Amino acid sequence: MTITYEALQALGLSIDMTRGKPATEQLDLSRALIDDVAQVGYLSRDGIDCRNYGHVLGLPEARELGAQLLGVAADQVVAAGNSSLELMHDVLAFAMLHGLPEGEPWRRADEVALLCPAPGYDRHFAICEALGIRMIAVPMLDDGPDMARVEALVASDSSIKGMWCMPLYSNPTGTIYSRETVGRLARMPAAAPDFRLLWDDAYRFHHLTEERYASPDIVDACRQAGHPDRPLVFASTSKVTVAGGGVAFLASSRRNIDWWQRHVSVRTIGPDKLNQLRHVRYLRDRSTLERLMDRHRAILQPKFEALDATLSKLLGDLPDVSWTRPFGGYFVSLFTPDGYAKRTVEFAAQAGVVLTPAGAAFPYRVDPRDRHLRIAPSCPALADIERAAQVIALSLREALAEGGARAA
Amino acid sequence: MTITYEALQALGLSIDMTRGKPATEQLDLSRALIDDVAQVGYLSRDGIDCRNYGHVLGLPEARELGAQLLGVAADQVVAAGNSSLELMHDVLAFAMLHGLPEGEPWRRADEVALLCPAPGYDRHFAICEALGIRMIAVPMLDDGPDMARVEALVASDSSIKGMWCMPLYSNPTGTIYSRETVGRLARMPAAAPDFRLLWDDAYRFHHLTEERYASPDIVDACRQAGHPDRPLVFASTSKVTVAGGGVAFLASSRRNIDWWQRHVSVRTIGPDKLNQLRHVRYLRDRSTLERLMDRHRAILQPKFEALDATLSKLLGDLPDVSWTRPFGGYFVSLFTPDGYAKRTVEFAAQAGVVLTPAGAAFPYRVDPRDRHLRIAPSCPALADIERAAQVIALSLREALAEGGARAA
Repeated sequence: MTITYEALQALGLSIDMTRGKPATEQLDLSRALIDDVAQVGYLSRDGIDCRNYGHVLGLPEARELGAQLLGVAADQVVAAGNSSLELMHDVLAFAMLHGLPEGEPWRRADEVALLCPAPGYDRHFAICEALGIRMIAVPMLDDGPDMARVEALVASDSSIKGMWCMPLYSNPTGTIYSRETVGRLARMPAAAPDFRLLWDDAYRFHHLTEERYASPDIVDACRQAGHPDRPLVFASTSKVTVAGGGVAFLASSRRNIDWWQRHVSVRTIGPDKLNQLRHVRYLRDRSTLERLMDRHRAILQPKFEALDATLSKLLGDLPDVSWTRPFGGYFVSLFTPDGYAKRTVEFAAQAGVVLTPAGAAFPYRVDPRDRHLRIAPSCPALADIERAAQVIALSLREALAEGGARAA
Repeated sequence: MTITYEALQALGLSIDMTRGKPATEQLDLSRALIDDVAQVGYLSRDGIDCRNYGHVLGLPEARELGAQLLGVAADQVVAAGNSSLELMHDVLAFAMLHGLPEGEPWRRADEVALLCPAPGYDRHFAICEALGIRMIAVPMLDDGPDMARVEALVASDSSIKGMWCMPLYSNPTGTIYSRETVGRLARMPAAAPDFRLLWDDAYRFHHLTEERYASPDIVDACRQAGHPDRPLVFASTSKVTVAGGGVAFLASSRRNIDWWQRHVSVRTIGPDKLNQLRHVRYLRDRSTLERLMDRHRAILQPKFEALDATLSKLLGDLPDVSWTRPFGGYFVSLFTPDGYAKRTVEFAAQAGVVLTPAGAAFPYRVDPRDRHLRIAPSCPALADIERAAQVIALSLREALAEGGARAA
């Protein structure tokens, strides 16, 4: 028997698929981070009393852990507070207020722009909008952003100061930047001397299959290409340990790290080193972290599979509808025929499934073709995912039927 | 027998009195904050899973604790990360980038200035300098800043956007703003419509005697005076629990809190609620916190007394030399005859006692009379304080003798 949209509506569902939040079961994986605090205490390996002030770039052993995770030297890593979003915001705020090492404060420029592969991460775009940074959308292709377009823009327009990149399992398309794409990003000439790659490596360890994809080392690639200060790499343990109380990392050239230190020292005497110490003792090293991520995958993979199975069953016959089957990360992108994304979100909401607003994954929240939906299957229980996927699929069918009726 | 400067030098001392750091014994007072984490767990009173994302203004019960401590309503309080310095920096950075609710972004103004009672807190001044905010020094008198001067400047100059205030046990003079001063600050007309009092209540609970001084409620005073948005109150538990991992608070009008929320939401999904939960369970309420502060006082008071006793013994005969005997806070100010502060710091350093650089307590690090020294007696062991005070006193005498010889 086929389920109908009306029947789903009658169930009175309430499922939130708006954000990439970890599920409670995932948070429970790191119970030891809370339960073992008393054993961890407050003294670092080097005898630093983590309770007191100081160490503005982070506890040395937390920086070392970050270095191991990100594949750079420890003096090229900052270990900071509880989210990489803060680091991204502050890098751009500092660039705006103070300028990067080789340039004027951006606030003095007539115009400052960043390239934004789209669909992309809405919080990146919100920072740009708040700071008055113009966003130039570039299409996201299967192997990363449209590099011909990127190269042409970056070479010719000195107001383009940088580019958002999520190289692995990109939010929300799951895109894996190819080796060639990464190489071209490292090598391409830039008209702006202070051009930066804002390299958000949020899903570096967040695989959804047995295959552990890895993005090429952008710090090394840029250094070899003669652009050592180009990459600013961001990562955090928010989706590794606890989402609200993780440790965030910034990795870059020594020159950029010195620049960061100069400006962040005005803002803080240091991060919460106690939390950093707990993380170092709990996560230990890269292989321990990877074993933890396998347990995350065991929770997440069935949710993504259930979503895909239901979408296949209910939408598989529609040639103009497609969706991603990501190898990692936290999101599925669903592409409707042009002009149906907003209406689908509305129908889904009326049946109790809240999706990220249509358009959210585009600069200025405008999807020019109104066809992209971002689905976040991590937080709802597995049992709810099939229902939610039914609602999404049948909401799209309702929207299409309505559109067909209007056209007739 | 009288100790000499040379004899002290021969001791090979190494005592750091540069910063207001808590001593290890003080940090040990809050061992339960670390030892009892497993019992505290992660679920808030309201069932919020503190491990996950969200609550950008802080955990509700942390905001309630802040409200009780600061004497305002909970919806007028933000509970944030690990230092009030960050909040002060970000308030000014947001004002610069985005403007306050009633004004243009400060970056668009030809000039932006803040009044800086001096001597004052060097980190306040560093924020101004970094952001390109002009600092206008106003003299600090016995009952607070020179109000006649403040009122005249603020009423006539619309580029003056605000004023730094440490109302209780001011850093570094220990000044307690009088009731009249606070009333005048609340009432005074300001030429700038977005004029703000940056009210750093760092030492609200940090008494050094049995007398618990209290500053008048600035939020209420400004509201009654028809300037509800004028005060931005900052405080933290950094010198209550652990210096590197406390909870910071911002209190103000609802309008200012809404403004803060709008801009900080771009920067973060929320603070570390686990740390906030631990703090709420450990500190409980105002009277529990005050009992803890009594134990801090028991550690600090003898250090301040030993410093005072030694300075009295070795400098009491010099009519042009004076120092503060603060009723709270973390600092002693020593005033030398004009022109001797820098040289005294140099002599002290040569005898192994590091003081805050002379001039640090003034805008642009310039003490126009070169006569102020900031002494931070909290961190060294009590046994070292007498020695350090001897070094400081005899260093001043060395400087004076050198000056006398030069003059002769």
